[in-house]
Amino acid sequence: MIVEIVTTGSELLLGQIINTNSAYMAAGLNAIGFDVVYQTTVGDNRERMRAVLEQALSRADIVITSGGLGPTQGDITKEVCAGIFGRKLYLHEESLERIKAHFRHVQKEMADNNIRQAMIPEGAVVFKNYAGTAPGVALEDNGRLLVNLPGPPSEMKDMFERSLKPYLEEKYGFDSVIVSRVLDTFGIGESSLETLIRDLILAQQNPTLALLVRPSGVIIRITAKAPSKQEADELIAQMEKEIRARLDKYIYAVDDEDMEDIVGRQLLQRQLTIACAESCTGGLLTSRLTDVPGSSAYVKGAIVSYTNEMKHRELGVSEEVLASQGAVCEAVAAAMAEGVALKTGADIGVGITGIAGPGGASDEKPVGLVYIAVAGREGTIVKKNIFTGRRKQIKYKTTQTALDMVRHYIGKL
Amino acid sequence: MIVEIVTTGSELLLGQIINTNSAYMAAGLNAIGFDVVYQTTVGDNRERMRAVLEQALSRADIVITSGGLGPTQGDITKEVCAGIFGRKLYLHEESLERIKAHFRHVQKEMADNNIRQAMIPEGAVVFKNYAGTAPGVALEDNGRLLVNLPGPPSEMKDMFERSLKPYLEEKYGFDSVIVSRVLDTFGIGESSLETLIRDLILAQQNPTLALLVRPSGVIIRITAKAPSKQEADELIAQMEKEIRARLDKYIYAVDDEDMEDIVGRQLLQRQLTIACAESCTGGLLTSRLTDVPGSSAYVKGAIVSYTNEMKHRELGVSEEVLASQGAVCEAVAAAMAEGVALKTGADIGVGITGIAGPGGASDEKPVGLVYIAVAGREGTIVKKNIFTGRRKQIKYKTTQTALDMVRHYIGKL
Repeated sequence: MIVEIVTTGSELLLGQIINTNSAYMAAGLNAIGFDVVYQTTVGDNRERMRAVLEQALSRADIVITSGGLGPTQGDITKEVCAGIFGRKLYLHEESLERIKAHFRHVQKEMADNNIRQAMIPEGAVVFKNYAGTAPGVALEDNGRLLVNLPGPPSEMKDMFERSLKPYLEEKYGFDSVIVSRVLDTFGIGESSLETLIRDLILAQQNPTLALLVRPSGVIIRITAKAPSKQEADELIAQMEKEIRARLDKYIYAVDDEDMEDIVGRQLLQRQLTIACAESCTGGLLTSRLTDVPGSSAYVKGAIVSYTNEMKHRELGVSEEVLASQGAVCEAVAAAMAEGVALKTGADIGVGITGIAGPGGASDEKPVGLVYIAVAGREGTIVKKNIFTGRRKQIKYKTTQTALDMVRHYIGKL
Repeated sequence: MIVEIVTTGSELLLGQIINTNSAYMAAGLNAIGFDVVYQTTVGDNRERMRAVLEQALSRADIVITSGGLGPTQGDITKEVCAGIFGRKLYLHEESLERIKAHFRHVQKEMADNNIRQAMIPEGAVVFKNYAGTAPGVALEDNGRLLVNLPGPPSEMKDMFERSLKPYLEEKYGFDSVIVSRVLDTFGIGESSLETLIRDLILAQQNPTLALLVRPSGVIIRITAKAPSKQEADELIAQMEKEIRARLDKYIYAVDDEDMEDIVGRQLLQRQLTIACAESCTGGLLTSRLTDVPGSSAYVKGAIVSYTNEMKHRELGVSEEVLASQGAVCEAVAAAMAEGVALKTGADIGVGITGIAGPGGASDEKPVGLVYIAVAGREGTIVKKNIFTGRRKQIKYKTTQTALDMVRHYIGKL
């Protein structure tokens, strides 16, 4: 089946927002065997939108739109689509009830124009919106399928996964499947990594291999196409085995798992607790640890000691060391890690001190210099790092490195 | 002049990469008075690419492509475009010399297929590539302009700024400029906001108004078109004045500033310091405060008290209250805010306790229930919130709300 994705909205045409929805939908549709061959973006202009959609319906079997389902006058996608198929809009009571319930739940007043979001084309299948107010719709007209999804990425993704994919599967079945598996690596650069698996990359047929650089590290995407998911999974498993034989220590997760998920699972399995003493990361490490549902089982808490006074008083870092070596040094990182573990009774303490920049640097201590310490019953280890990038990047790289240190530390326990 | 942007490449269709080029080009073109009304993405398929480009030339005055100028067999954009205008490709010696020089510079061997990149359509204007090897081209055919830019963002951007914009300016002149200004609001929903300025939206001509929902809140984009930037700025200023007269208390920033930037500036100006006691946000609020360069001047630090024990021992929250009312209640939030201010000597303390979910909820205390307190010399205020979304969204919405409360609190000092 040929698919065209049509994203609507003047903010896209004006370049005010980047179109991430098209990539998400395209990847998801390709993964279940649909061929996305066109992606079009058009503004909130009735004539142009109608022309674009009519053409899309003439060259694709399935047209999926995103955007223009909001409550405002500028949200016209549903009306235009209904018009193309000559359908009227009617008030869909169930959708209206859901919208009212949403506003009751957040204890806010529903505005009258939200009623527009409950107007549905005659004969349309309605997709519930679990992440917002605008329902989605699927309209069919002699073999052509026209689907409207919301524009906000969180709502689009939720509806795409929960409603659209099952709907398409039931309707068309999936003849062949494309399955991808991502191996997340950390601590090795793209070119070194490529050198270690170049023969596999050169010999790739099915599955294929792709190396992609991410802020979290380099990822290896293995993609296999087969009649069934099981067969695809087997092809992937063979390739993964071959890759792991060479790179296992760098691979910390697969697919969408983050370093904090992995460390969290380790802590749960080993029944260990953790606490952090953060300076230049300002709480980001602990925030990442607590992004994981259930993390309250192993995260004791943190001291964000942005001043020397707090480093000394809350964490017991020696004033002499702070005075003689400064706040950014190996000894302070170690004392912070040990201090926060002692104070909170956590099994593992992490200490971070560094210069996120742009200010605060000196010749000996450049922007990006960060000391990370991990303390526990196996003693305290400290790593000196010099990270590049802007302030937020340095903060993120610091937390990723700290989590990887904890991962290895627990692995050795 | 009507412009269509056509991005080519299977990796875009497959959703393997996000299309940032279209947004960059669209923003740059709109800023100099061109109307980008269509964006299309097509793969490396001759027939489909040709059909898409012919249609683009039929509905736009200027068609700008990005991608498909590389050395491989899959890179066909130049050939397809030359074919549409019935031009042959010839070897452009100067481009070949530049490509050879590039490889000498990076001390690598030039592969034969790089010669393809120096093949130029007859009669085309050549754009030098200062960031890579593929030259760009501009082809004209009775009043229709077809421009090919490289796909790699760094090369496309460099060529867009250095070559395409000056070329377009010389060719068409920039009779007008388009200037946008964003008003960032918080604390009011899209539909309520629209209700308050519906007359302005309905009457909009120049400047135009657009409401966009962002995780940070609803933004109002004012876009004006005028012969000069100064005149556009004046049109925007008048509209902004009108909007502020109705919505000023909701508007916390303009353009790209974040709430933490605004609060940081307030704290600096008033020479106040801040400290946070975070439970369900796990340090995210303090991390956002410390994303701002120079924040060490006003951020004392934070206690992330993920356990009742830490709430009591580190922040002095009464054990009776914790036992009788639980950790998620107004009294605990207030005690946390006051406790952290006292402990750190900060002028302002923020306390956050809530249920980020998915677990930990009860009938009386649903997921998303969050109490936020701000304490200082004007006393302590506490706000009860019920946020929707997933764990990370609830964490973010909590920090945005907390920062806005601090903003209003300082405003009243």
